[in-house]
Amino acid sequence: MISRRIVIVGAGFGGLACAKELAGTDADVTLIDRRNYHLFVPLLYQVATAALSPADIARPIRRIFGRYRNIHTVLGEVTAIDTAAKTIRVDDGHTFPYDVLVLATGSQYSYFGHPEWQRFAEGPRTLDEARRIRTRLLTAFERAEAADDAAERDRLMTIVIVGGGPTGVEMAGAVGELTRHALARDFRHIDPRRAHVLLIEAGPRLLPSFPKSLSDYAKQALERLGVTVMLSQPVQNIDAGGVMIGGKRVAAGTVVWGAGVQASNIGRLLKAELARGGQILVDTNLAVRGLSDVYALGDVALTPGDDGRPLPALAQVAKQQGEYLGRALAESNVPVTPFRFHNRGDTAVIGRNAAVFDFGRFQVKGYFAWLLWALIHVYLLVGFENRLGVVSHWVWNYLTYERGARLIMEESRGEQNS
Amino acid sequence: MISRRIVIVGAGFGGLACAKELAGTDADVTLIDRRNYHLFVPLLYQVATAALSPADIARPIRRIFGRYRNIHTVLGEVTAIDTAAKTIRVDDGHTFPYDVLVLATGSQYSYFGHPEWQRFAEGPRTLDEARRIRTRLLTAFERAEAADDAAERDRLMTIVIVGGGPTGVEMAGAVGELTRHALARDFRHIDPRRAHVLLIEAGPRLLPSFPKSLSDYAKQALERLGVTVMLSQPVQNIDAGGVMIGGKRVAAGTVVWGAGVQASNIGRLLKAELARGGQILVDTNLAVRGLSDVYALGDVALTPGDDGRPLPALAQVAKQQGEYLGRALAESNVPVTPFRFHNRGDTAVIGRNAAVFDFGRFQVKGYFAWLLWALIHVYLLVGFENRLGVVSHWVWNYLTYERGARLIMEESRGEQNS
Repeated sequence: MISRRIVIVGAGFGGLACAKELAGTDADVTLIDRRNYHLFVPLLYQVATAALSPADIARPIRRIFGRYRNIHTVLGEVTAIDTAAKTIRVDDGHTFPYDVLVLATGSQYSYFGHPEWQRFAEGPRTLDEARRIRTRLLTAFERAEAADDAAERDRLMTIVIVGGGPTGVEMAGAVGELTRHALARDFRHIDPRRAHVLLIEAGPRLLPSFPKSLSDYAKQALERLGVTVMLSQPVQNIDAGGVMIGGKRVAAGTVVWGAGVQASNIGRLLKAELARGGQILVDTNLAVRGLSDVYALGDVALTPGDDGRPLPALAQVAKQQGEYLGRALAESNVPVTPFRFHNRGDTAVIGRNAAVFDFGRFQVKGYFAWLLWALIHVYLLVGFENRLGVVSHWVWNYLTYERGARLIMEESRGEQNS
Repeated sequence: MISRRIVIVGAGFGGLACAKELAGTDADVTLIDRRNYHLFVPLLYQVATAALSPADIARPIRRIFGRYRNIHTVLGEVTAIDTAAKTIRVDDGHTFPYDVLVLATGSQYSYFGHPEWQRFAEGPRTLDEARRIRTRLLTAFERAEAADDAAERDRLMTIVIVGGGPTGVEMAGAVGELTRHALARDFRHIDPRRAHVLLIEAGPRLLPSFPKSLSDYAKQALERLGVTVMLSQPVQNIDAGGVMIGGKRVAAGTVVWGAGVQASNIGRLLKAELARGGQILVDTNLAVRGLSDVYALGDVALTPGDDGRPLPALAQVAKQQGEYLGRALAESNVPVTPFRFHNRGDTAVIGRNAAVFDFGRFQVKGYFAWLLWALIHVYLLVGFENRLGVVSHWVWNYLTYERGARLIMEESRGEQNS
């Protein structure tokens, strides 16, 4: 008997968890990703703000499965899926047959119908984007130091962060600390502590998926860091010189996007029904509706939750779904019992000694939440070589208020706006 | 009385040492560099071979001088020098007047009149180059894994390193270890241990600036690592598919340059006499011949040594010259006593437990030289935040044979040859 061929697309939290459950079984697993590493996305904002290096939060996929001979790693981007012939094709032309297909390609930023904004306002979603944001931020201060014109200096020292969800809050806090502490003494003509950090949210409060008490705390904590929080202010336009809000122009040297998220494009390669955000509609056992032997999980899927509402796009949802599906596939061809999400707590960190934690039944905020956040993230980085490195960077940053990874990369310099 | 304005161009080993001596004095110092960081160039080959991350060996210049208010840091590239008006201009249009000018812009790779080779064979001289080499190397193995054609697979698994000086020897050793150990188990269709690593030297022996016994040892140590060493073989051509040597074509997936070095281009902006390699001719006190109040040091200068022969292009020469000139300028306008070079020992590392050390009067090789090399380099990284990080990476790499920074960057992928 030939062993079942399971093809998993995407080595994020969901795809990786699924492959791990299948490692060492008799299934023949092919794991396809367009990058050669698994990325710990929740810490990307720390790469964008010069606290961590790319290798600290990325881990080669081949290495993870080095000793499991039944896991094949393929570097490539999927270009076609034939659900009738049961094959999948990648960009170098290779075609892989499957008995079971798992789609776990995650999500990407959505610019609300304004793809032209991306050029001026990237979000920290990939390592390259995070590095470009870092270069843009640091270069803006270099240019401000050299600027002769006061208005241009003010513009360069204005950083606008769009979106008040966890990414925006964490970016704003990290940029606030960068300007208030790490850069504070290093310039002669400008005072980075006087930089304007603006966090803009279209809705009436920050962290809309958290209880209101934590939203209020996050706003206060950011304001203590010198961040200006603007609520109920949708962004009307973004260009090379800044953003337009409430009919007024805010000149800015750096604009960071942390607002909308949409599913990755792989759903379009399927002849399946998609939700408005591009997510693939799946049943409670993660099977794609209307197709057989195709599953989707994580941010790319729209999964009904216990209360009928779709599950949120969170790393912990993807990870639990991957584990669930991997275990089910290891046992049989079709998962029977429905997936159940167990909320392990949702978190956002604002800055040193300030974070929020929502466990559903109770909430934690402030220093204790921050400590919990740090401990949990170090634990989640288990298996990353650089867990020790991350801890040593964090301890160093905490004690010295310094940021080690303040490198302006030449490759990225040309893309600087203005 | 207005304080003397000293402009230093280049924050490599020489320029940085010079500025450090002047920190806290009454001189008004402007330090210009086209990058925002000081780079520990001798360890770049470890970034190129995935052992270290860029931030491990780079340090923000502003941070180094944060508390010295008399040191101004400028990010920019020099475009013009007016030695009559005593001004220097950078690419953003700003002009800086000087009383004393110090040029310490270092060197770059020379392609022996074949600048078109650079595209196909970069050398690890900047962080961006090192990252691109890393991406090229790792991508070649990914492609070999996916290749259907045996000849193409062999080509992709062939790495040619051009130049048998310290850079070439260190690159060849590090690539040998990467393929023999770190990548060994991670592929299914190829065996990275069977990769061909070729080190090509035009002259009759490796490490020509070292005593012959050390050259012979380096060759043996590399061969033990599986590296093929080809001596007396000048490279005749390099293109996207490989190199031409001795009239024969060697198909290669990755070609790394470590051969010739020439002075940076800043000499051309001066109306001064240049040596054949583009170096600025200076007197024994580092004053540029024919100009007043202009000094040059390090790789960009051709300094007469005690024996009349020019001093070698080494980090320790640049550093000592910077210290000498900085101290002299702190005391008076003109350095009077000539510069004397004190040889602290020249080194090259071949791989784990194998290095050579030449102290002039005696030589060390093997395990003890390797240990000495590691200790000295950790000591030289003093002041780098990440000394602890580098040590932990090295200990980890040593114990596990692993390489943590195996990241293929998307930005660089497009530049892959073929």
